[in-house]
Amino acid sequence: MTDSLPMPVTALSSAQRTAILNLVRRAARAEILPRFRSLSEADIAQKTGPQDLVTEADTAAEAMIARGLSRMFPGALIVGEEAASTAPDLIGRIAEAETAFVIDPVDGTWNFARGLTTFGVMVGMVRFGQPAFGLLYDPVMDDVTWGGADLAAEMVRPRHAPRPLRASPGGPVDQLLGYVPLFNFEKDLQPAVAAVLPRFGRAWSLRCSCHESRMFAQGNVDFVLSARLTPWDHAPGAAIALEAGGHVAMLDGSPYKAQQQDGYLLMASDAATWGRVRDVFDFLI
Amino acid sequence: MTDSLPMPVTALSSAQRTAILNLVRRAARAEILPRFRSLSEADIAQKTGPQDLVTEADTAAEAMIARGLSRMFPGALIVGEEAASTAPDLIGRIAEAETAFVIDPVDGTWNFARGLTTFGVMVGMVRFGQPAFGLLYDPVMDDVTWGGADLAAEMVRPRHAPRPLRASPGGPVDQLLGYVPLFNFEKDLQPAVAAVLPRFGRAWSLRCSCHESRMFAQGNVDFVLSARLTPWDHAPGAAIALEAGGHVAMLDGSPYKAQQQDGYLLMASDAATWGRVRDVFDFLI
Repeated sequence: MTDSLPMPVTALSSAQRTAILNLVRRAARAEILPRFRSLSEADIAQKTGPQDLVTEADTAAEAMIARGLSRMFPGALIVGEEAASTAPDLIGRIAEAETAFVIDPVDGTWNFARGLTTFGVMVGMVRFGQPAFGLLYDPVMDDVTWGGADLAAEMVRPRHAPRPLRASPGGPVDQLLGYVPLFNFEKDLQPAVAAVLPRFGRAWSLRCSCHESRMFAQGNVDFVLSARLTPWDHAPGAAIALEAGGHVAMLDGSPYKAQQQDGYLLMASDAATWGRVRDVFDFLI
Repeated sequence: MTDSLPMPVTALSSAQRTAILNLVRRAARAEILPRFRSLSEADIAQKTGPQDLVTEADTAAEAMIARGLSRMFPGALIVGEEAASTAPDLIGRIAEAETAFVIDPVDGTWNFARGLTTFGVMVGMVRFGQPAFGLLYDPVMDDVTWGGADLAAEMVRPRHAPRPLRASPGGPVDQLLGYVPLFNFEKDLQPAVAAVLPRFGRAWSLRCSCHESRMFAQGNVDFVLSARLTPWDHAPGAAIALEAGGHVAMLDGSPYKAQQQDGYLLMASDAATWGRVRDVFDFLI
């Protein structure tokens, strides 16, 4: 190792966080918002099926954010959703990377492509697979929820003081609100997942991990269960959830790592609530 | 009858529609948007429970819209969601009213109160219970979807040409996308409703009739099933759905009327798709 190699990033400075936020904001203004409610069917392509879409906004915004992060953090591994769809080995490299950034340029692409405002941009920093920082940006309202190992979870809005965030107090199962993405489970598991939904106070889905993670960190819902894990969908929210006081683990009790793609991630208000939700879904373990 | 009595409104002129839209827009700017993501818990009150909220935005916006409509249409019955919560007999008077207006000042109040952008303002015109005109306004994006007996369904955005709307082509059950508000059904029905959800391509809920109706009219989902009917939640969307080519009826096949509070309303792409969705939910009839 020589002095000329980039130093690993152990924690982001305030200036670095602001620089990342401004990069994300510029990408949203240049590549995402001008296309919102203005896409034609020709602008929308299917990935794995009619529910899994990609648009010019995704690819152009990711390219811009990835370029900016590479310049700011020359030694870091950059894993964007669209890049990984053509180079799936990128995900495997996260576990060994001292500093990795994950990017979801338009999370909630179906919503975005169909004109619903429930979409967002996510960036996460990961150290050896451990979520260390998350940024959840809402392009429509131009505000951000962020937090991580060295930054208390907070919501930052233009012209407002930052608001510290705290997970909900939790509670008994029949009063819990939570996100359960029924249609992200394997087809043969969906009947069993659907069957337990009525046991909760309310269980639904926003089709957007960015806003689901925001709602959890704000204490508006008590848990988020995720299937079909990807680093860009789940690592940023997990970093913030931990800082907001939430209990974050795989449904089988093992620690969550950003490179994890199998199994189910469960974030809940606290360890006791986490256990109660886990018990409802024990048939998945 | 004398000449001095207000004439019944048979169809809205273009100028009247624009005047209603501007009234709604002013209410949103004055009473709704300034409170979005700025409410404290003290600003949020429960109606029937922790999931059924009302805020200052609801009451103030409704008062402003009701005042404006009363001035524009002096003979019309005005039925706002918040007014009706203290005067429930208002709903019963809709059936006999030659011209009634229904108002949902903030539809999707839970979303609004918790900081999600999926909320809207709805105004509907009803003639003897028959939905005749609907206006679905998105305050965050400042655009409107409207339509009715004398107005083709269209989406109108600032600085864009109006876009004509058409319901989806429909299809077989396992490919249909639709909104099913699981937690609006009576508790003892929820297991049966949950059990059929996996039969669809995707079935979920936005917790906001305004945006569910917009998505249906835009052809982005194939059906909307509604429980807990209220005139302000369902009459505006039904008027537009009919104009967009949709098939609209109560689940038991009877015609939908705005004053209807029992039973389930089903809107679907066409009569064949409607029938296929009805068959899935035949246990509710």
